[in-house]
Amino acid sequence: MKKLLNDPADAVRDALRGMAAAHPELRVDHDQRYVARATGPEQGRVAVISGGGSGHEPLHAGFVGPGMLDAAVAGEVFTSPVPDQILAATTAVSGGAGVLHVVKNYTGDVLNFQLAAELADEDGIAVRTVLVDDDVAVQDSTYTAGRRGTGATVVVEKAAGALAATGADLDAVAAVGRRVNEASRSFGIALTACTVPAAGTPTFDLGPDEIEIGIGIHGEPGRERRPIGPAAELAEIAAAAILEDMPLERGSDALVIVNGMGGTPQLELYVVFAEVARILGDRGVTIARSLVGNYVTSLDMAGCMLTLTRLDDELLGLWDAPVRTPALRWGG
Amino acid sequence: MKKLLNDPADAVRDALRGMAAAHPELRVDHDQRYVARATGPEQGRVAVISGGGSGHEPLHAGFVGPGMLDAAVAGEVFTSPVPDQILAATTAVSGGAGVLHVVKNYTGDVLNFQLAAELADEDGIAVRTVLVDDDVAVQDSTYTAGRRGTGATVVVEKAAGALAATGADLDAVAAVGRRVNEASRSFGIALTACTVPAAGTPTFDLGPDEIEIGIGIHGEPGRERRPIGPAAELAEIAAAAILEDMPLERGSDALVIVNGMGGTPQLELYVVFAEVARILGDRGVTIARSLVGNYVTSLDMAGCMLTLTRLDDELLGLWDAPVRTPALRWGG
Repeated sequence: MKKLLNDPADAVRDALRGMAAAHPELRVDHDQRYVARATGPEQGRVAVISGGGSGHEPLHAGFVGPGMLDAAVAGEVFTSPVPDQILAATTAVSGGAGVLHVVKNYTGDVLNFQLAAELADEDGIAVRTVLVDDDVAVQDSTYTAGRRGTGATVVVEKAAGALAATGADLDAVAAVGRRVNEASRSFGIALTACTVPAAGTPTFDLGPDEIEIGIGIHGEPGRERRPIGPAAELAEIAAAAILEDMPLERGSDALVIVNGMGGTPQLELYVVFAEVARILGDRGVTIARSLVGNYVTSLDMAGCMLTLTRLDDELLGLWDAPVRTPALRWGG
Repeated sequence: MKKLLNDPADAVRDALRGMAAAHPELRVDHDQRYVARATGPEQGRVAVISGGGSGHEPLHAGFVGPGMLDAAVAGEVFTSPVPDQILAATTAVSGGAGVLHVVKNYTGDVLNFQLAAELADEDGIAVRTVLVDDDVAVQDSTYTAGRRGTGATVVVEKAAGALAATGADLDAVAAVGRRVNEASRSFGIALTACTVPAAGTPTFDLGPDEIEIGIGIHGEPGRERRPIGPAAELAEIAAAAILEDMPLERGSDALVIVNGMGGTPQLELYVVFAEVARILGDRGVTIARSLVGNYVTSLDMAGCMLTLTRLDDELLGLWDAPVRTPALRWGG
């Protein structure tokens, strides 16, 4: 294993030190391992937090800041944060109007966020939870009952954070998060495995021309292994899987994310985007907004994930609202 | 070779199709292969363009937009654009106040931009050139007489674009670009080689625990090959090489870029950033601004590059000025 690390066991700790040094506008709690806005809680405003295993950067800490998350809780690589961490972050951001937990659907995350929510409730902090389960590739998976939560997490966090910034109440912020999740689908393809620092070896093996169709963001198996084909064909596979599950009628607007898994250069992601644009254009779907780059990664895995969100005026407005985080920044 | 491509020979063409689909605020000239702002030239304002071989995305097209570049010219992967392309872009962005060429110091780029500048001059367009040669690793290199141009290109393009936006004249915009280059140094480390699509095999071989110290962004050899060490040691090597060449006195302000080469996850880049912050802190240098991520890449190469720029009030102001491009966006 060749990685830019000190002791692989300290990877998350050291990366959080780096985040603290690079982003004075954020506050890193090194004991409880969460990243929050340095400005502290805003009284009377709903707070939005998320978190999960590390190794998916910039998710989640890269999305902390005005217009998006109030805090992100960092577990060890591919390991859920524990309830105490989540509770500490929930308490730290609470401004008295409740806290929304955005939780990707993995068994450990679901359980630990739920326990933290119960503990917060005992402390008088109202918590609602949005479960993200946008990955259409498989129904159940290695770490999951039901579908996995992947690329749509970015959109849920953006929309919920934007609505919270307007002063909306907790139920409204939770409802828009759920609505984004229902309007979003994802599908990923891996060209290589990733290597978890503490393990030191790839999470699985792929042959020199082999790819995994429907990969999970921890390297969980997808639908099938097959030889690699041209980008046009891979984009077709991903788009077809999504559109079969969530048809987009002619004339509809979509947010399109072509997300790199961490080890794939942007040149290739734009090649994939061109093919997705062609496919959606043929179906009369308008790409109203897009992202091309690394947003929800799987360490050094090569490959990409396609996420489509059906946009209406409200979601478009929330997406366009000002945001100021390390990984998403515009407006205002 | 496993890559998300159609015909590898069409990689650049297809990626430009993707850029056009993803960024309606940009205009892609598919014949001459340059990317410009869709708004067209601004009369009476100096225009700033850059370009070079592809494979370094988001450099350069990802930096086209208000506050930064007016256009970026795309050569084939790791191959200079030809003079006709550069002339076409120069002509397209000219608003009558002259055009600045930001050129990384590689023999092909230097020659072709110079020819294009001469042709533009014959057409009555004044051109100045800023040569970027910030890489302290080696004096001459595979494609270079003198030092290579790498990470500082981003800072030169940002500062020159910001000054041009204020209505400054061509000589002033060129002067600030040169001043940024003189105040900047870079040093890169490769953990793996990269694979040029048309070649299909890695550009060089590294052993399972071997790294290349002082790598170029096309995989050109650096100072030495050695076994990988901890991130703290690698950061020391890069910082020492830079600070030996450009000492930063106690109390000075620096812009610090920990740049991924394309295949390295952000988790690792933040680990490196933490070590760089420690080293600069020990020397009394303040990290006034920073970037952590993929900005000047080398296809799928794993590794990172450290760039330091000594900031004064003018350069800090130009860095902070509003910018709205695919890869850098803030303010305004």
